[in-house]
Amino acid sequence: MKKEKVTAALIIIGDEILSGRTQDLNLNFLAKNLAEIGINLREVRVVPDIEEEIVDAVNAVRKKFDYVFTSGGIGPTHDDITSESIAKAFGDHIVKNQEAAEILVKYYGEGNVNEARMKMATLPSRSSLLDNPVSSAPGFRIENVFVMAGIPKIFQAMFAAAKKELIGGKTTKSLEIKISLTESIIAKDFADLQKKYPQVVMGSYPFDGGTSLVFRSMDYEALEKAKSEMETILKNG
Amino acid sequence: MKKEKVTAALIIIGDEILSGRTQDLNLNFLAKNLAEIGINLREVRVVPDIEEEIVDAVNAVRKKFDYVFTSGGIGPTHDDITSESIAKAFGDHIVKNQEAAEILVKYYGEGNVNEARMKMATLPSRSSLLDNPVSSAPGFRIENVFVMAGIPKIFQAMFAAAKKELIGGKTTKSLEIKISLTESIIAKDFADLQKKYPQVVMGSYPFDGGTSLVFRSMDYEALEKAKSEMETILKNG
Repeated sequence: MKKEKVTAALIIIGDEILSGRTQDLNLNFLAKNLAEIGINLREVRVVPDIEEEIVDAVNAVRKKFDYVFTSGGIGPTHDDITSESIAKAFGDHIVKNQEAAEILVKYYGEGNVNEARMKMATLPSRSSLLDNPVSSAPGFRIENVFVMAGIPKIFQAMFAAAKKELIGGKTTKSLEIKISLTESIIAKDFADLQKKYPQVVMGSYPFDGGTSLVFRSMDYEALEKAKSEMETILKNG
Repeated sequence: MKKEKVTAALIIIGDEILSGRTQDLNLNFLAKNLAEIGINLREVRVVPDIEEEIVDAVNAVRKKFDYVFTSGGIGPTHDDITSESIAKAFGDHIVKNQEAAEILVKYYGEGNVNEARMKMATLPSRSSLLDNPVSSAPGFRIENVFVMAGIPKIFQAMFAAAKKELIGGKTTKSLEIKISLTESIIAKDFADLQKKYPQVVMGSYPFDGGTSLVFRSMDYEALEKAKSEMETILKNG
């Protein structure tokens, strides 16, 4: 059944993000692409490559949100512990996934799939695969959790596969007014307008030389009205 | 007393990050700058502009880590609810902070501090201020939680103020070997080396055309040894 409000969380797994070695780009990509199909990203956590931390984070969010995405930790090396951790979070265990193994053999060639590479086909027993056209080793889904690679190009390719399985809700639309005033000048009027339209979430974001007033809602009529009233207020100064 | 291992968490507060409107840059800046002074960023959460979510996130991490930093939500508009939320998390209440009010009056000029601007001087009663040389309205500290602005330039300026109050531990050093091999080729040797040097955290990060092997530790002797052993393994192929 299609829900009106659909929510998601992202768990970014990786010491390289927490050490500052790597700038995360997956959050922003996911946020935008989920929004387009009517899914609201509501929480993100970044955790280190430690099993207990991954298990706790996954279990903290998977019942709270409709969908959970993870990024990172599904490669061939010893520091890639996401698959085992996800299995543990679900009380499942990892097994050699025959379909994934065949994909790897086809990609690398018979005899070239060493133990490390086969690790990428060793997944929770209840996984279904997410196609990876970039480098073959698949992501996977277990229940409402989509487990994807950390490298942005592969994360994005896996998201394209995941997307086919997502059922979005009503899209939150966003309208914006850019003004050259500093935000404190319009703060009172803006707050009054927010009280009048509780179904529209209004945010104010300063930039060099002005302020963006952002209106977001699933009630498109109220959204247009709120924006238009703000424009009238600004015109009448 | 100086601890050897000092940890921190970051809570990013803001609908604009979760909607994809804004790419976060504060995580990476904070991670790098904390690492330099011997503080390990261990967890990050991104939460929306909802009081309960902010309170829960702050209370989940402030006892678990030595320091907590927050970014976002301390401006003059109605959607800036961080100060009230932080007060609530500590069972404190917000009051007009005389020192902060004077800073604003000095910056904006007598008579130019309207109610919205004065909101930026309305802080938890137990706050101490963090100087903001960019736009005057200060950040603040309450116990081990440092509350800072979301705009990167201001976040960075406030961090410079916060830094004076931080007591770091031993610095984790990082060494790197770049190889032109794909990571699955070296995975077994690398895993064996990790087992031999449990005090060195080893990670493998593929890039286009090769792999970075990263070694991180507070035990500098073990760090050098582990890296050098890996180089020997690579040379002997």
